[in-house]
Amino acid sequence: MSAKIRLYVDHPLGEGQTVPLDKGQAHYLFGVMRQGLGDAVALFNGCDGEWQTQVVEAGKRGGALVCVTQSAPLKMPPDLWLLFAPIKKTRTDFIVEKAAEMGAARIVPVMTEFTNSGRVQRDRLQAHAVEAAEQCGGTYVPEVTEAQRLDRLLANWDPTRRIMFCDEGLVGGAAGLIGVENPQGPWAILIGPEGGFSERERERLHRLEYAHAISLGPRILRADTAAVAAMTVWQQAFGDWGANG
Amino acid sequence: MSAKIRLYVDHPLGEGQTVPLDKGQAHYLFGVMRQGLGDAVALFNGCDGEWQTQVVEAGKRGGALVCVTQSAPLKMPPDLWLLFAPIKKTRTDFIVEKAAEMGAARIVPVMTEFTNSGRVQRDRLQAHAVEAAEQCGGTYVPEVTEAQRLDRLLANWDPTRRIMFCDEGLVGGAAGLIGVENPQGPWAILIGPEGGFSERERERLHRLEYAHAISLGPRILRADTAAVAAMTVWQQAFGDWGANG
Repeated sequence: MSAKIRLYVDHPLGEGQTVPLDKGQAHYLFGVMRQGLGDAVALFNGCDGEWQTQVVEAGKRGGALVCVTQSAPLKMPPDLWLLFAPIKKTRTDFIVEKAAEMGAARIVPVMTEFTNSGRVQRDRLQAHAVEAAEQCGGTYVPEVTEAQRLDRLLANWDPTRRIMFCDEGLVGGAAGLIGVENPQGPWAILIGPEGGFSERERERLHRLEYAHAISLGPRILRADTAAVAAMTVWQQAFGDWGANG
Repeated sequence: MSAKIRLYVDHPLGEGQTVPLDKGQAHYLFGVMRQGLGDAVALFNGCDGEWQTQVVEAGKRGGALVCVTQSAPLKMPPDLWLLFAPIKKTRTDFIVEKAAEMGAARIVPVMTEFTNSGRVQRDRLQAHAVEAAEQCGGTYVPEVTEAQRLDRLLANWDPTRRIMFCDEGLVGGAAGLIGVENPQGPWAILIGPEGGFSERERERLHRLEYAHAISLGPRILRADTAAVAAMTVWQQAFGDWGANG
């Protein structure tokens, strides 16, 4: 029994555990996906790994699954946050989706001087992160935080968490992480808005001892492209794509 | 004089050269972007570099620009093709956009056994590549070819062009390009469809001496995410992001 459908649930998982489904989940599973009694569904909740479960109750307004066996242990992503300046709705959604796929532990929308996006709907973005986790086979869902102002975020920053920021002023320079010694420990990647950082923000970032500027090649990348490229650079060098994975 | 607006034109560029605008370009430049006589516009055509030009004629049905100085030489991307299996419309558009930003020289839609996308509109995809080139500061526009069947493409493949393909069967394996010696020369990156390659396709690819399988980390990436991540891996190792750029 190996389920093709993977669902995130906010409920404990363990051998013999019964997991109730709410109306929305029941509609998706039994209405949209045409599952029924006895069918297999994989569940994960972000802390108990992935479990193979079986449908034991299927109704229009709800249902229940029973955990049978654990099919994967919990695998935490590296301690990497993705900080990004929100842009147009579709591209913001894509950045959150890609951050979850690429293995960010936390996703933080930041308002920079040149960010001209309106309010960020945290709940909608969190739902995108859940969907991406269901799809990419991960057992963890990154938390999407409320949007924060970059200046306040930096004022309260824990200096043991290093920041890799993408500096458009370096376009054409050598790519990759230059001169970072002892890269172990927590990190954050910071992606600026489409118009780049302001001169004041750039200067401030360059002054921070824990911040490292990188170039992402000779062309100017859109924010969503830059997010994936920067996470690839980091995951290959320090994350769970290589020997550390 | 440094223009904020960059346009691709299908016309020779050179000192003193007059470049006529068609109705669509005139509408965009004078109607949408509110440019007028004497304003500066940067032009590139994929072979003569980037030129700073000045508006010398502005009408509703057309106009003209005159080339003043060359502001950037032609910079070709590395000889890298991106082969990808078309998916849903928005994500296919994104892949083409990202391929242009990331520096592909040619973009080839390929039909694999598990590709269930309908007809590919080459012209629309080419327009996305032009727009991405205008936006990313490149002086070259990758050609989008007609869609081709993977089996036919491989049957006529030039074995001096190596293929890096992303094998979902390797998810969780070590990332990066393993065991590629003398990586100089032409390359292609092949991204499979959402359902992965068929067993027959995988076996065929693994048998090809010029094909190299890579893993893109422990999570399953969507095709558009995989395209950016794979091009990042390649550009960093062999392309114009590093010392070769």
